[in-house]
Amino acid sequence: MPSISIKGREMPASPIRKLTPYADKAKQEGKHVYHLNIGQPDIETPQVMLDAIRHIDFKVWAYTPSEGTANYRARLSNYYNALGYGITARDILVTNGGSEAITIAMQACLNPGEEIIIPEPFYANYNGFACSAGITIKPILAHIDNGFALPPIAAFEELITAKTKAIAICNPNNPTGYLYSRQELEALRDLCLKHDLFLLSDEAYREFCYDGREFVSPMHLEGLEEHVVILDTVSKRYSACGARLGCMITKNKALWNAALKFAQARLSPPAVAQIAAEAALDTPQSYFDAVKEEYTARRNALVEGLNRIDGVYCPNPGGAFYVVARLPIDDGDRFCQWMLEHFSYNNATVMMAPASGFYSSPDAPKNEVRLAYVLNINDLEAALTCLQKGLEAYPGRQK
Amino acid sequence: MPSISIKGREMPASPIRKLTPYADKAKQEGKHVYHLNIGQPDIETPQVMLDAIRHIDFKVWAYTPSEGTANYRARLSNYYNALGYGITARDILVTNGGSEAITIAMQACLNPGEEIIIPEPFYANYNGFACSAGITIKPILAHIDNGFALPPIAAFEELITAKTKAIAICNPNNPTGYLYSRQELEALRDLCLKHDLFLLSDEAYREFCYDGREFVSPMHLEGLEEHVVILDTVSKRYSACGARLGCMITKNKALWNAALKFAQARLSPPAVAQIAAEAALDTPQSYFDAVKEEYTARRNALVEGLNRIDGVYCPNPGGAFYVVARLPIDDGDRFCQWMLEHFSYNNATVMMAPASGFYSSPDAPKNEVRLAYVLNINDLEAALTCLQKGLEAYPGRQK
Ligand SMILES: Cc1ncc(COP(=O)(O)O)c(C=O)c1O
Ligand SMILES: Cc1ncc(COP(=O)(O)O)c(C=O)c1O
Repeated sequence: MPSISIKGREMPASPIRKLTPYADKAKQEGKHVYHLNIGQPDIETPQVMLDAIRHIDFKVWAYTPSEGTANYRARLSNYYNALGYGITARDILVTNGGSEAITIAMQACLNPGEEIIIPEPFYANYNGFACSAGITIKPILAHIDNGFALPPIAAFEELITAKTKAIAICNPNNPTGYLYSRQELEALRDLCLKHDLFLLSDEAYREFCYDGREFVSPMHLEGLEEHVVILDTVSKRYSACGARLGCMITKNKALWNAALKFAQARLSPPAVAQIAAEAALDTPQSYFDAVKEEYTARRNALVEGLNRIDGVYCPNPGGAFYVVARLPIDDGDRFCQWMLEHFSYNNATVMMAPASGFYSSPDAPKNEVRLAYVLNINDLEAALTCLQKGLEAYPGRQK
Repeated sequence: MPSISIKGREMPASPIRKLTPYADKAKQEGKHVYHLNIGQPDIETPQVMLDAIRHIDFKVWAYTPSEGTANYRARLSNYYNALGYGITARDILVTNGGSEAITIAMQACLNPGEEIIIPEPFYANYNGFACSAGITIKPILAHIDNGFALPPIAAFEELITAKTKAIAICNPNNPTGYLYSRQELEALRDLCLKHDLFLLSDEAYREFCYDGREFVSPMHLEGLEEHVVILDTVSKRYSACGARLGCMITKNKALWNAALKFAQARLSPPAVAQIAAEAALDTPQSYFDAVKEEYTARRNALVEGLNRIDGVYCPNPGGAFYVVARLPIDDGDRFCQWMLEHFSYNNATVMMAPASGFYSSPDAPKNEVRLAYVLNINDLEAALTCLQKGLEAYPGRQK
């Protein structure tokens, strides 16, 4: 039998899936599992989007242009321009989800062997995309004690070598929920200009900013036009993860053209999703207001609930729908597995994502977990009680 | 401005798109362009599939499992087993089109720097996928004079080195339409077993076999269970190119698990497409019979028409909806561009794909073009007349 050695590629397994077998087993044993581990929102997709699917009227389900349909790109550019991005439809490349936007951006911006700096903890699948692209991620530690703010620019400078081609941020952040300030982004701008680096900005959670805080994109900053690459998706904005539709935006024509070659090889993004996402641009503001209100309430319940538990610390983040919390435990991987394997309260348990999967520095903390607030408040409260009881019973508890 | 040097990656531009600006210009000048250059069928998508889209009833357009939904994989495995593949749902990995199935298979089977042997002319985007995966394609010339039959096994043997990990075929073939015989596949099986190589079989055109000829897959052969990887798509089978749904099938569990890691990083294949493709499995046989009849008539019209033109030679292929023809010209690239830029007959011209894009050997013929018969017979006849007149007028004509 042929030897499969993908060692050279070292494609990492998704850390979020590692615990799935334990969750499956817990369910087989009749336990209810509160899923705080995943980013699949329970929010309903906007009606205009679902209606658009139901009203498709083509007879041939054909390829669209590799860069996306002219209609969708034109209307989508209006959406971004209403945010002040100052782009044209020609700056947009429509992709198979935000995932493909990230992969294509990495492949187009960097040669194999080159480096991208990313503050960590970061979205774990960046590791997989980087591995696929044959590039190296240089992580730079952000800390829970200041809420995972941008690490000092000096720390970036230390990592920059001749191989460094780009910096990537996710804003608002997955997994920390941190929302970068204008000041932080300006510091990054100066750094990117000084060292001539691309700045990749993953804005999957742009719509989810709370407490009236302003969302700032590198697209809003002057002087960075040739360096900024926006990575976006309809997955979270419209709770349309199954659409598999995202985009990459850059005003840098050489980069856009390089990216197009990757898009052309895979022929086309999905056609029905583009029709639906175009319709989604008519989603009424009331939809977003309601969603934001719901998430704000959930975040408040979760963050307050966590901080009430003895020994737990959780910053109150400005965006997305995740938090990273520090628990009084020896090891997040062990604890999360133990919760599924050995614990239940009222015949239920909680599934969380160990933060280890979002870190790669050897000096990363081991006692953090990521929790997604994609459950309704009642379930969140029940999950919090369950977590508290679990922490009390956990044999690896630290004082 | 940051330097984009993707030289190391050398991502090739799609050869089929190279002539698009000339076609656009021809249209602006008011010429009608017969598109024999692309593989977008004009055939209608089955009604059951379109109906399934119109009847979606979910409220949250959610991610599906990374490997595809359990329902779709189960029903899809029945489709393959009716063909005698002897697989289970667990052998199937659902992908974003056949394109992603090919990319993932290349990434999972080969390490960067390793080699795959592919008879040429071959589907040009294999170059892009290989480039993305950091692997090297070793082409092996097939010849028009024997209808692009499998090159002799000895020629494969000559190319095999320590770096060789796989052989790939496309059957029926794009661009040649050639349908491999059982004997040819058995010869490949023996070769793959002897050298412990994966055998990738791109079966995008499986449904399109003519003249009552039998379709044979490596999945039908004994002893090759651990080595075969099937690459498939609903794009052509159901004329559903915009669905972006394909799959990779292998009985080799280690390989399947390696491939899953790439699938998990990009989270999910499209959800609506899976619902529609599941419904498509109920497409009545009459649909396929009608499509096959239509394509057979078109192929006959095209092949006979081509061979009637002075100096033209075109084999009569057993499958797909492409032919490669030899024309009495100096250079296919120049001729195809000239047809768009400088020629018209009855205010129309023909767009073809120069075969150069499907070859990479330096000794590849320069006087071949690929024609797709995705137009109705009347248009095909008009295009043939136009081509004949063009060949008569072309300044680079060879005797
Ligand atoms: C930060 C971030 N970026 C990108 C993605 C990719 O999303 P998709 O491929 O569904 O667009 C996700 C999904 O969870 C994410 O959290
Ligand atoms: C031989 C071959 N393989 C794979 C594909 C990819 O098709 P898709 O990504 O639409 O499934 C095509 C499309 O033309 C093809 O011709």
